[in-house]
Amino acid sequence: MMKKPENSILLDCISKKDITRPPIWLMRQAGRILKEYREIRASVDGFKALVKNPELSAEVTVQPLDILNVDACIFFSDILVIPECMGLDYELIEKKGPWFPKVIEGPSDIDKLIYGKEASDKLDYVYNGLSKTLDRIDGRVPLIGFSGAPWTLFCYMIEGQGSKTFSKAKRFIYKYPEASGRLLDFLTDTIITYLQSKIDQGVHVVQVFDSWAGVLDKTLYNSFMVPRLRRINDSINRVPVILFSKGAWFSLDSLAKIGPEVIGIDWTISPEYARTIIGKDQVVQGNLDPCVLYGSKELIEAKTHKMIRDWGANHVVNLGHGVYPDTPVEHVKSFINSVKNFSYSD
Amino acid sequence: MMKKPENSILLDCISKKDITRPPIWLMRQAGRILKEYREIRASVDGFKALVKNPELSAEVTVQPLDILNVDACIFFSDILVIPECMGLDYELIEKKGPWFPKVIEGPSDIDKLIYGKEASDKLDYVYNGLSKTLDRIDGRVPLIGFSGAPWTLFCYMIEGQGSKTFSKAKRFIYKYPEASGRLLDFLTDTIITYLQSKIDQGVHVVQVFDSWAGVLDKTLYNSFMVPRLRRINDSINRVPVILFSKGAWFSLDSLAKIGPEVIGIDWTISPEYARTIIGKDQVVQGNLDPCVLYGSKELIEAKTHKMIRDWGANHVVNLGHGVYPDTPVEHVKSFINSVKNFSYSD
Repeated sequence: MMKKPENSILLDCISKKDITRPPIWLMRQAGRILKEYREIRASVDGFKALVKNPELSAEVTVQPLDILNVDACIFFSDILVIPECMGLDYELIEKKGPWFPKVIEGPSDIDKLIYGKEASDKLDYVYNGLSKTLDRIDGRVPLIGFSGAPWTLFCYMIEGQGSKTFSKAKRFIYKYPEASGRLLDFLTDTIITYLQSKIDQGVHVVQVFDSWAGVLDKTLYNSFMVPRLRRINDSINRVPVILFSKGAWFSLDSLAKIGPEVIGIDWTISPEYARTIIGKDQVVQGNLDPCVLYGSKELIEAKTHKMIRDWGANHVVNLGHGVYPDTPVEHVKSFINSVKNFSYSD
Repeated sequence: MMKKPENSILLDCISKKDITRPPIWLMRQAGRILKEYREIRASVDGFKALVKNPELSAEVTVQPLDILNVDACIFFSDILVIPECMGLDYELIEKKGPWFPKVIEGPSDIDKLIYGKEASDKLDYVYNGLSKTLDRIDGRVPLIGFSGAPWTLFCYMIEGQGSKTFSKAKRFIYKYPEASGRLLDFLTDTIITYLQSKIDQGVHVVQVFDSWAGVLDKTLYNSFMVPRLRRINDSINRVPVILFSKGAWFSLDSLAKIGPEVIGIDWTISPEYARTIIGKDQVVQGNLDPCVLYGSKELIEAKTHKMIRDWGANHVVNLGHGVYPDTPVEHVKSFINSVKNFSYSD
């Protein structure tokens, strides 16, 4: 049995205990918004060196707790460690993003991949980093572990890089529906064993990010992706699951039926729309437009308080996307303070 | 009074006359999918040389009619001719996209712009190209003229290039809401005089593209963009308007209330969802996922026929986005044939 963190507002919100304000953390809070992160990042040879260094991963994970006083830490890592442990190495090219020298070009390439525990067991640097992070957090707040979702990882394994349309990945599905299902299953197997190993280390919550869900449509998402997300969710019983399918407004009902403890919501979905579809009891996470943090302190507070009131109870405050790297840290603090000075009873 | 084209199925659909099948054309049909286009493109020094050449613009506009037998032509041009005529030159960098050496950095830059008729009158090469195109079409099908929408053009004028998030453009709105309104108004004025000049030349339909609507949310879109789109729509009485705000599912009801003759729909919006919001009488245009055209002939036909049945009457067939340049032309032909062999009475 895990010990309850001193600040348990995130876990209390998820388990629907009485709280006086919503909890807050930010996607990508461990990152370039903090000068302390940028210093660590500059001291190593590339982003991947940081991802593969358990000591430094732990250090940057805990920075937002020490500096911003958020209600949870999320372990600093990269979603692409999964394709890599399955057999597709990648590089990170400065100002361009990820690049895979070798990609999945046809169905026969899929059979060469390793998957499941055999693959995820290679990610020792993550598990070591989690252990070091928990030492540093020292029981102050919960630690979230994350994974990319099968579709988002599939995108990179086919395309080999980012894309506006992910049309190659979608082409693969339309050309090779069976092989696509096999690759998605291999990814699902690996994500499950990866998340289980994170939970073994002691993370309190897991989040699954489907960053590119929004390029699909309801038919494709519900037939190809929702069953795999359900399998991931069903496999995790020891900690709560946050499921964030960015852009998948069209499948919000199907995502809720999977039954994750928390559903992540991007900023294009209004509280009114979401509550109509998934009800008031579903815990949600989100969904301030990250660009609001470019505005004045007054704008940030007004928009944050309105958002909290519009969602009502069962709401974890976050942005509707990762915080943008050029957001002034003082504005991030205004956002966090706006949540901390809010009271449901006012 | 404009003469009715020989093939008037698009205009008949828009005016709700009896038709036996829906009309079809493709966004970006005049473009890289055709080898005949690529030959013309290779013969000139850059994409902009093609845009500025009335004779060649006319030639590539008519190619899809001659080769693919679509039910309408759309004049070949670039949405960025508007920022350029307002005073911001741009370049097109091969494989990267548009790039503006000078951008709008603050409110004072907006006052240096020219706008309205003074700006749009500089686009003689477009109006000459339209006249030459109508000669070449010779009454066979209607000709569509288009413009970018204020928000999408605003994005480029602030960012100076494409972006995944358009966070600089959104930051501008949150930091300078009044100046943003002024720039959007200047753009609206220019778009109106531009479209009026196109109608003077004889285009039968105009389409307004808001390609980046989907990075906003309902509040921003409805407060900043919908009023300007309404002003554009209200100013155009001589021909039907197609309004396509890609990704703006959250504002579909507000877009319909503007009253455009046709609403463009992207592939993430299902017919069921759209018809619930905007009813059965609203003419829609779309919305096959462009990636379906990577599939087999059988898949293309099945998905196309299902889409036509799901939309019901008052539907112009198109993709939910511009056709992707690497789509095999034979697959485009299968798509078009699937529509032509469909009958509402079957």
